[in-house]
Amino acid sequence: MLCLLLRLITLYCLSLLLMSPAIGGEKIEVDLIMGGAYVVTMDKQQPVIRHGAVAIRAGNIIDVDSREKITARYRASQQLAGSGMILMPGLINGHTHAAMTLFRGLADDIALMEWLQHNIFPAEARFVDADFVRIGTQLACWEMIRGGITTFVDNYFYPDVIARVTEQCGLRAIIGAPVIDFPSPGFKGWNDSFAAARAFVRQWKHHRLITPAIAPHAPYTVKPEHLKAASDVTRQLGVPMTIHVSETAHEVDEIKQRYGKRPVEHLEAYGVLNPSLITAHMVWPDANEIKLLATRGVSVIHNPGSNMKLASGFAPVPEMLKAGVKLGLGTDGAASNNDLDMWEEIRLTALIHKGHLLDPTVLPAAEVLRMATLGGAEAIGLADKIGAITVGRRADLIQVRVTELAHALPLYNVISHLVYSVKSSDIVNVVVDGRILMRNQVVLTVDQRAVAVEANRLSLRIKRAITPTH
Amino acid sequence: MLCLLLRLITLYCLSLLLMSPAIGGEKIEVDLIMGGAYVVTMDKQQPVIRHGAVAIRAGNIIDVDSREKITARYRASQQLAGSGMILMPGLINGHTHAAMTLFRGLADDIALMEWLQHNIFPAEARFVDADFVRIGTQLACWEMIRGGITTFVDNYFYPDVIARVTEQCGLRAIIGAPVIDFPSPGFKGWNDSFAAARAFVRQWKHHRLITPAIAPHAPYTVKPEHLKAASDVTRQLGVPMTIHVSETAHEVDEIKQRYGKRPVEHLEAYGVLNPSLITAHMVWPDANEIKLLATRGVSVIHNPGSNMKLASGFAPVPEMLKAGVKLGLGTDGAASNNDLDMWEEIRLTALIHKGHLLDPTVLPAAEVLRMATLGGAEAIGLADKIGAITVGRRADLIQVRVTELAHALPLYNVISHLVYSVKSSDIVNVVVDGRILMRNQVVLTVDQRAVAVEANRLSLRIKRAITPTH
Repeated sequence: MLCLLLRLITLYCLSLLLMSPAIGGEKIEVDLIMGGAYVVTMDKQQPVIRHGAVAIRAGNIIDVDSREKITARYRASQQLAGSGMILMPGLINGHTHAAMTLFRGLADDIALMEWLQHNIFPAEARFVDADFVRIGTQLACWEMIRGGITTFVDNYFYPDVIARVTEQCGLRAIIGAPVIDFPSPGFKGWNDSFAAARAFVRQWKHHRLITPAIAPHAPYTVKPEHLKAASDVTRQLGVPMTIHVSETAHEVDEIKQRYGKRPVEHLEAYGVLNPSLITAHMVWPDANEIKLLATRGVSVIHNPGSNMKLASGFAPVPEMLKAGVKLGLGTDGAASNNDLDMWEEIRLTALIHKGHLLDPTVLPAAEVLRMATLGGAEAIGLADKIGAITVGRRADLIQVRVTELAHALPLYNVISHLVYSVKSSDIVNVVVDGRILMRNQVVLTVDQRAVAVEANRLSLRIKRAITPTH
Repeated sequence: MLCLLLRLITLYCLSLLLMSPAIGGEKIEVDLIMGGAYVVTMDKQQPVIRHGAVAIRAGNIIDVDSREKITARYRASQQLAGSGMILMPGLINGHTHAAMTLFRGLADDIALMEWLQHNIFPAEARFVDADFVRIGTQLACWEMIRGGITTFVDNYFYPDVIARVTEQCGLRAIIGAPVIDFPSPGFKGWNDSFAAARAFVRQWKHHRLITPAIAPHAPYTVKPEHLKAASDVTRQLGVPMTIHVSETAHEVDEIKQRYGKRPVEHLEAYGVLNPSLITAHMVWPDANEIKLLATRGVSVIHNPGSNMKLASGFAPVPEMLKAGVKLGLGTDGAASNNDLDMWEEIRLTALIHKGHLLDPTVLPAAEVLRMATLGGAEAIGLADKIGAITVGRRADLIQVRVTELAHALPLYNVISHLVYSVKSSDIVNVVVDGRILMRNQVVLTVDQRAVAVEANRLSLRIKRAITPTH
C-alpha cells in the first residue's frame, strides 16, 4: 500500500516536471513543431533521440526533446509530425554551379580540359545570360529541395540573379561572384568582373539567407596578384572566398611549370590561405599541402561524383580528415555529375575511398554523414547557424521517410541507413529558416511547370546549336 | 495537278501499307500494349524509337514500332501508354543473395573476412531457416520490382523457398542451390548439400521463369574435386553454375598458397571453365586469367557497390570487356551494399573506373547500360529470351518516368540520362513475361504490409541477439 502511494507521488512529481513550462495548461506558442521517429541531431550530447521533436519560433530551434515533452510544452500553428520518419539537419551542398543543370547530359565521357574547352566554355559563351541563369538556378533549387539540400555554395555567372532566385526558393546559400582573367558572360575580363563582384558582396552582405562571396575560378585561370586582391577584399568585407584548387594532376603540373610550386603552396606564397577560404575538389594535394590546409584553417569541399566522371582522381579525404582539415561534400554542377543529389555523393564518399585504399574501415558512415551536415557547415563557416539540431541554431531541417519502403527494411542502425540506403526520393518535408519549402514531397516555392517549359525551350536551342558528343 | 494526284496516290498506298495487318478495320487482339516517348531497345538496328510501342501476346513481344503503327495494328485489353516515359528492357541483377536483405545495415565498415566470419556466418548459422529466406526474398523481390529489376541471379540457402517466392512475385531468376564443404543452414556438409542441389535442379528445370543452377560458394570454401563434380553435373543437366571468384587479393594469395595457382587458373586446371559458368566479382584476375575467361566463354558479374564497401578493389572491367569477356552487373546481397538498386550499380560502374584509371573515356554510358540489360542477359545465358526489345523475345519491360522530375530536365540524350541521372524511384511500371508486376509504382505481387511486419519481427530477434558493429 505504501509502495503504491510512493509510486503515485513519484508519478505526480514526474508529470509536474514534464509539464513545467505549461503549468496551468498554458502552452508556449511557437510557429512550427517537427517530429521524427528518430531525430538525428549531429550533436554529440544526444546524437539520436527516439520519438523526438523540435520547437521552432522565428526560424530558430528553441527546444529539442522527446515528442511527448515538446507537445506538452508547446502548441504550434503548423506541425510536421514526421511519424515513421527521420528528422535531421538539411544537407549542405558545399560546391555547385546551380544553373549548369541546363547542361545536364550535354557532354559525357570525355576529359576535363576537353569538356571545359570544347563543350562547356563555348556553350557558356553562346547561351549563358541572365535568363539562362534564372531558369537553370530555379531548376537546380527544385532538384535540391526535392532531395533534402537546404544550403548550397554556388559559383556561377550573374550571381545577382542566382541570389534573387535562391531568395524566392527559400534556400540558404553562399553565392560566389565569379572573377576570372579572361572574358566571361557579361564581362570583358578581370577589372570589370572584380568590380561587379565587390558591388555584389556589398549589396547582399546582410541578407538572412544569402552570404555573398567572391569566387576566383582557379589558380590556372586567375593570376596570383588577382587572387591576392580578391582574398584581401573578402577579408576586409568579412565574406568567404571560394575557388577550385588542385582538381587534376594536369593542373598541378601547369601551376608547377608556371610558378615553380604546387597549387596549395602557390596560394600560400601569395598569402591567400585563411579560414574563410573554401576550396573545391583538392584531389592532388601532397602531404605538405595537406598540412598547410590544416594549419591555415582552409576548408575543402569533396566532389566525388564529378571527380570520378571527369577522371580527376581520388581526393585524399581520409588523410585530410586525419590532418584536421575542415571537409564538406558537394555535387559540383549537373554538367559533370549529372545531378544535384547529395545522397549519391554521401554514398560515393563512403564507398570509393574504401575501394581505393583497400581499407573498409576508412570513412565510416557517421564520419561521412557529418561531412554532409555539421562538418559541411563548419567548412563553409556557417556552423553557428546550421548543420545540427541544437537550441539556438536556425531551423534548416528535413524529414526522411523510413516506412513503406523496401530499402528501409529492416532498420538496424539509422546512421548506416542514411549513408548506405536512403535515396533522395525518400525526403518528405524540407524546412529552411523555419519556412516549409517542401511538404509531402511537393516543392512549394518553385513553379515547376513554368521551369520545365522554359528549361525545355532553352535546351532545344542549345541542342540545335551544339552537336552532343554522343 | 499531276503532282497533287501523285501525292494522293502515294499517301493512299502508304496508308494501306501501314494498316496492312488491320485491313478492313480489324485489329489484331493482343494482351498488352506498352508505349514510350523513347523506346530504348538495346537492338543495334533501331537503338531508340521516338514515340514507340510494343505489342505483347502470351508473354512474347510480337511487334515493335512507332506508337501510331502499333495502335493502328493491334488492340489490347491492357495498355501501359507510357507517355512521358522511357520504355526499355528490365534490368538484370546478375549476382545477389536476395534473402540477405534481412541483414541490411547489420554490420558496416569492416573487412570482408571479418564481416563474413564474425558477423554474417554466425548470424546465418543462428537465424537462417526457411522462414527467414521466405521473408527476406519477398522483401528483396519487392525492392527489385520497385527499382525496375526483372531478372536476378540468386545464390542462397533454401533455394526451393527462393524459387517459390520468386514465382509468386513473378520475377525471372536463375537460382543457384548453394553447395559448400562445411556445415551450412540445413546441411551437414558437401554430400547432403550436393544431393539436395541436384534434386533442386531436376525439380525446377522446366519452369517458365526459374532457371535452377548449382552454386559452389568459392574456390576457397569448396575443394577442387567438388568444384569439378558440380561443374560436371551442371553440364549434364544443361544448367548454369555460379560461383564467387577472385573477390579479394587475400583470396588470390590463399588459393596460390593452397594450389600453387591463381583462382581462375586453378579452375582451369580442373576443367571448370566453360560458357555456362557465371562468376561473380572477379576483382583480381591477371592478364592471363582474363584471356582464359574470354577463351573459355566464362561470364563475369561485376559488383561495384559491394567491392567498394568491402574494400575488395576495382575489377578490371574495361580490360575484360576489351578481351571479349561477357560482363553483367550485380548488386550482391543487401548486407554488403546496402540495397538492391541496379541504377546505383550502373552509375558506380560508369564512374569509378574512370576515376581509378584516370581516363574519362572508359566505360561510356552506352556500354554500361548494355551491361545491365543485353550484356547481362548474354552473361547469364538468357539473351535469346531477354535483354532487348525485339520481336520474339519475352516481354520483360519497364517504363521510366522522365517528366515532372527536376533531375530529368533537360533531356539531351536518353542513354546518358539512364546511366547518370535516373533513380530507382523513377520506375513506374514493371512487366515480366507479359505480366504486370508494378503499375503506377504500386507493386502488385508482394503483400508489402505483411512483409514489413515479418521483416521487423525477425530483425528485432536478430538485433537482440547480435551487437551491431556501430
